[in-house]
Amino acid sequence: MKLPLKVNLVEVGPRDGFQAVSGFIPTTEKEKIVRGLHNSGLSRLEITSVVSKRAVPQLSDARSIIQVGNQLDTCLTQVLVPNVKYAERAIDFGAKKLVFVLSASPSHNYRNVRLSIKDSLTELREVLSLHPSNASLRVNIATALDCPFEGMTPSSNVTNLIEKILTMSSDIELAICDTTGRCTPDKVAQLFSHLISVFDDQDWVFHAHDTFGTGVANCLAAWHEGIDTFDCSVAGLGGCPFAPGSSGNVATEDLVWLFEAMSVDTGVQMERLLEVANQVERIPTALTGGRVRHALNNQQNQTRLGVS
Amino acid sequence: MKLPLKVNLVEVGPRDGFQAVSGFIPTTEKEKIVRGLHNSGLSRLEITSVVSKRAVPQLSDARSIIQVGNQLDTCLTQVLVPNVKYAERAIDFGAKKLVFVLSASPSHNYRNVRLSIKDSLTELREVLSLHPSNASLRVNIATALDCPFEGMTPSSNVTNLIEKILTMSSDIELAICDTTGRCTPDKVAQLFSHLISVFDDQDWVFHAHDTFGTGVANCLAAWHEGIDTFDCSVAGLGGCPFAPGSSGNVATEDLVWLFEAMSVDTGVQMERLLEVANQVERIPTALTGGRVRHALNNQQNQTRLGVS
Repeated sequence: MKLPLKVNLVEVGPRDGFQAVSGFIPTTEKEKIVRGLHNSGLSRLEITSVVSKRAVPQLSDARSIIQVGNQLDTCLTQVLVPNVKYAERAIDFGAKKLVFVLSASPSHNYRNVRLSIKDSLTELREVLSLHPSNASLRVNIATALDCPFEGMTPSSNVTNLIEKILTMSSDIELAICDTTGRCTPDKVAQLFSHLISVFDDQDWVFHAHDTFGTGVANCLAAWHEGIDTFDCSVAGLGGCPFAPGSSGNVATEDLVWLFEAMSVDTGVQMERLLEVANQVERIPTALTGGRVRHALNNQQNQTRLGVS
Repeated sequence: MKLPLKVNLVEVGPRDGFQAVSGFIPTTEKEKIVRGLHNSGLSRLEITSVVSKRAVPQLSDARSIIQVGNQLDTCLTQVLVPNVKYAERAIDFGAKKLVFVLSASPSHNYRNVRLSIKDSLTELREVLSLHPSNASLRVNIATALDCPFEGMTPSSNVTNLIEKILTMSSDIELAICDTTGRCTPDKVAQLFSHLISVFDDQDWVFHAHDTFGTGVANCLAAWHEGIDTFDCSVAGLGGCPFAPGSSGNVATEDLVWLFEAMSVDTGVQMERLLEVANQVERIPTALTGGRVRHALNNQQNQTRLGVS
């Protein structure tokens, strides 16, 4: 198999990361971060979620932030929605790509969106029916590998679910999510190898969490199976402020560093990204992760101090 | 190739980690950590270094610590030495395994041990000549992949050096060290694949640093080439207190978690290891790394609080 020599990094910090920060990040600060990310070469941003403002007050400025993204050249504003009601609103706000989320395990789906998987599929069908031509759709398969309530997810759960999704439309990007971060590279490789053999010509994304330190290794395992699109979060922002040690997505800097060092093009300028990552680290209550940021800051400090 | 279903983890925290802590850790505390590590199932400990007390005052209690290790059942006390003078002393102190270090790049060798590679090889020959039957020898090839002064190390440097070493004795374990942590999994795989094809029946170790977040992925790449022995440091202890962001070896907990989750036996009991890792994290000025410790502490806190 030909390994991808170019990868697409989908920056999910403004959604998956910001929603995990306990306080509300001022819209102007979010705007600065979004502009910085885009300026570093990340043209696809999961920029916010259109959800209940009561449930996720951190993202209550979704409309403004989507507008900010849409003003940026070549920016694909990707917005997560839990159901058809909010999908309609996100389209109204100008979202260019919708992300609809459902889980491969029933207990997680219910706890996450308060619906059975069957009802989530009905919602998805309605989202598809209202779908305008200027916004594309992605479906996140949460707990595709492991569920916090049910343990390892059988791959048949995933294939059955995907079959149902693809009968509605073949034009859907699918993201395989290691929601718990408990998955290991061997299992990532097995699942993607299986999915690619079953579903021909399908667009895939891998969404890794670095909770158990396998984020980079898991992305690499997916890349070895030919996957070329990865979610990641600037400064590894994420986790839950009430759960010390919980972790966000694999850090964008770590993936950029890894792939570029392997001569795989990410289109991202590390110096610019590093500036944004350092800004994100200063957000009060932000839980960050990743290693590359520290290593590069250290190099810069050494250069500044004349240490070689 | 048959992948190893059992791996040997060499705990280097008491040497590579403790020497990076700026203050002196009281011998009694070191002893407690060493006992804890051994009790968790880590029977091979790079327990200290016998070196100039002026250069590395942190390890000036080498004799006592080696004695502590030797009192523990099945503990292989491994001790790093820079030259024949200290090798003699380490044997006198009771070291069961000596680690002699030299670099694949001339500039690093000179800065590290103040010798040319040729002179280091002469030292090694002398170490071998005084070598008693009850202590075995390992050679660490520092900068085997990348050098802070010379960049990527040509693999011919490494093979030439190894040829010279193995003409002295074929009974030497060789550790390939990613000293800078800048190496990526593809290069780790390439080098090991090459070395294994050139040097038949040789015992290898991989010594990874997690500075750029590739520690786990690099170990996995080596494992895929058949490597079954890995250096690691409890709590990822290491780095340099004067260089924020510098990083230690890949965290022992991260490797234990990874391998056990892949049904590869490490012989380590995670709960016991976690206790020691938490103790190590509390050492003043300790720079720690790794993710698994945080994730497992968090799980324990949640269980304690009744959160599911």
